[in-house]
Amino acid sequence: MKIIYAEVVTIGDEILYGQITDTNSKWISEELDKVGIKTIRKSSVGDQKKEILNILSESLQRADIVLITGGLGPTKDDITKKTLAEYFNDELVINPHAEEFVRGFFEKRGRPFTELNRQQAAIPSKCTYLHNATGTAPGMWFDHHGKVIVSMPGVPLEMKYLMSNEVIPRLKAKFELPEIVHKIIRTIGLGESFLAERIENWEDNLPEHIKLAYLPSFGEVKLRLTGIGENRTKVEEEIETEVLKLVPLIEEHIYSFENDEIEKSIGKILNETASTLGVAESCTGGYLAHLLTSIPGSSAYFLGGVVSYSNQAKMDVLKVKQETLTKFGAVSEQTVIEMAEGVRKVMKTTFGIATSGVAGPDGGTEEKPVGTVWLAVTDGKQTLTKKLSLGKIRIVNIEYSAKAALNFLRILTKGK
Amino acid sequence: MKIIYAEVVTIGDEILYGQITDTNSKWISEELDKVGIKTIRKSSVGDQKKEILNILSESLQRADIVLITGGLGPTKDDITKKTLAEYFNDELVINPHAEEFVRGFFEKRGRPFTELNRQQAAIPSKCTYLHNATGTAPGMWFDHHGKVIVSMPGVPLEMKYLMSNEVIPRLKAKFELPEIVHKIIRTIGLGESFLAERIENWEDNLPEHIKLAYLPSFGEVKLRLTGIGENRTKVEEEIETEVLKLVPLIEEHIYSFENDEIEKSIGKILNETASTLGVAESCTGGYLAHLLTSIPGSSAYFLGGVVSYSNQAKMDVLKVKQETLTKFGAVSEQTVIEMAEGVRKVMKTTFGIATSGVAGPDGGTEEKPVGTVWLAVTDGKQTLTKKLSLGKIRIVNIEYSAKAALNFLRILTKGK
Repeated sequence: MKIIYAEVVTIGDEILYGQITDTNSKWISEELDKVGIKTIRKSSVGDQKKEILNILSESLQRADIVLITGGLGPTKDDITKKTLAEYFNDELVINPHAEEFVRGFFEKRGRPFTELNRQQAAIPSKCTYLHNATGTAPGMWFDHHGKVIVSMPGVPLEMKYLMSNEVIPRLKAKFELPEIVHKIIRTIGLGESFLAERIENWEDNLPEHIKLAYLPSFGEVKLRLTGIGENRTKVEEEIETEVLKLVPLIEEHIYSFENDEIEKSIGKILNETASTLGVAESCTGGYLAHLLTSIPGSSAYFLGGVVSYSNQAKMDVLKVKQETLTKFGAVSEQTVIEMAEGVRKVMKTTFGIATSGVAGPDGGTEEKPVGTVWLAVTDGKQTLTKKLSLGKIRIVNIEYSAKAALNFLRILTKGK
Repeated sequence: MKIIYAEVVTIGDEILYGQITDTNSKWISEELDKVGIKTIRKSSVGDQKKEILNILSESLQRADIVLITGGLGPTKDDITKKTLAEYFNDELVINPHAEEFVRGFFEKRGRPFTELNRQQAAIPSKCTYLHNATGTAPGMWFDHHGKVIVSMPGVPLEMKYLMSNEVIPRLKAKFELPEIVHKIIRTIGLGESFLAERIENWEDNLPEHIKLAYLPSFGEVKLRLTGIGENRTKVEEEIETEVLKLVPLIEEHIYSFENDEIEKSIGKILNETASTLGVAESCTGGYLAHLLTSIPGSSAYFLGGVVSYSNQAKMDVLKVKQETLTKFGAVSEQTVIEMAEGVRKVMKTTFGIATSGVAGPDGGTEEKPVGTVWLAVTDGKQTLTKKLSLGKIRIVNIEYSAKAALNFLRILTKGK
């Protein structure tokens, strides 16, 4: 079976000047990998016609598929569209579907539909219009001597929408791709190297055509099993067999087989048990509530949170005792227990979670250095507490603590 | 003055498969930009000899400088070093300085100095050895027909050490470099296309050597002016002159000349005026508090927040009247006013911000469709409200609303 090769091209001076990190090409090549398309090169070029024309012809010599992001906004420095039209000896014409959508986009927001906005609906006449429900710049699909060139906006959200809803399905339809089956097991609370040691023997005994990848992020490690073959069902069964061998080795750290984020897994648990949750946050500063409320429908189980950044707020809203704060300090087991019990009462919920710590970079002491974080979870009968000793980077401490707190609630509900 | 061009090449299958995000090339090009070297292309290729040889010769045709990271570790898939030796018709020889350092590196850690480790000290005989104090893989500098090729390890810490201590100083010594000046003006509350129309004449009259770029993100647009010349002070003055012409055109939308995020600008305003802030969040679900508390030192002015996701919480914690919720609903001007005033009292702060809306994707009605968001800001005397009509994507509505709310507070404090 012929391997299909792809190249990813990201366009934008802001990438070349190092003012933004290109995360699009990582995401795109990961998606291509999932459907059995091999990325052989990634390139970033500036907003100059010459550069774009060069990279286009070079990439097309090497690859079957060229996916481009960036340079599709309404302003002058966005020239990808014009350059593509020139490359294919084509002209820009207003696409009626695009125009209708863009017009509605602005009308809905009560903003004037200017000529500059209307031009967002202009695309090369030879390309296939790819509908972008998330913004005003459409995607463009070009068939060219059996090869494919696709242009997408650089805004990650819009690129992802187009990739998932338009590009990947069309690529699967156009090219004969091998069956690639991915299975992701999400784990939390065990570092990559410790995880690797635990499952070493299992990993060494995986069949040739099933590969394992460790995808670590704050406090979590995703284990991705990738099987390749001609018969999808067969590969899926083979992977299931391996998963069944893996589970007993790390069961207490696995929180999802459906590639759900921990906040989504928690949501499912709370829904299934018709339970509700309230959170009291000090060091996580609202991030924990944000994770929970980023899930659609979370209002069914998440009733509210208190970001008690000051001691006054801890006392007034969460009813933490003054003497507790005086005697043990805001960052202490005693305080975080009272916060968790307090928010559970205030929000009238089944469960309460609380976080308090020194997020940093400053504010640490000998006794409580930066990275010291206390967590508490309670159901009114049982209250669990845990102390984390993290690093010095504020945002890492915030995100890690929030995820750890959610996993801590999972442990309370599951009893493991 | 001749512009010096650079290309950045990152090597590694894990980049092409989308298993890691390449952050090296962003950092490298940012450092090059600071010293007036223009990055014209970035490329990522896999750990294959053919790919590396190709990208090397291609890059050298376009650029004066080629900076390579990755593929220098001890494992077999790291072949950059051998490939470079082949490219320059050279052979690998043990460098005594490198060997001494690597030996010490392992001895210090009480680890055996194996032959595999010793080979880390082998570099092409023609290259200049660049000392890497942070790891066992040295950097390599090749002078080649007036051009420069540098190879560095892919580990960010090691690459950064070599760039800062060896590569940048040597590049400044070798090449005559121009001065490049960037000035970023952050704007909010005006879409890219509307902004472009407002400043079109100004933009068209910019001098040849000063370029404008639009860098949009949720609800914000960064305007970046880039000037190039021989005399830094002169270029800075020329850019200042242009900025002074720009400001009156969009003054009410500018929130930072220091490239601060809106949450950081707000923090500065609150610090300068010794004011404090509390936030009441419904649809933003804690994201607003998260933005504020992501800034180190924010506890000086941010006293706390309430994520009142349920009506009960709105009444119990924020003292929103039951009749207000019954008569006008949770997503209404009246409710959001009571929330803002409520949180200001509860948290005992100078200012209160409130958000309430339908974040989506579900939960919309004829009268209040998904994307309907009410904002309120108050200082106890004056209360401003605003209605947003956004789209259907939950995370966008959350992030946009939070940023808009912070800007709304800025407007209240500035009176514009």
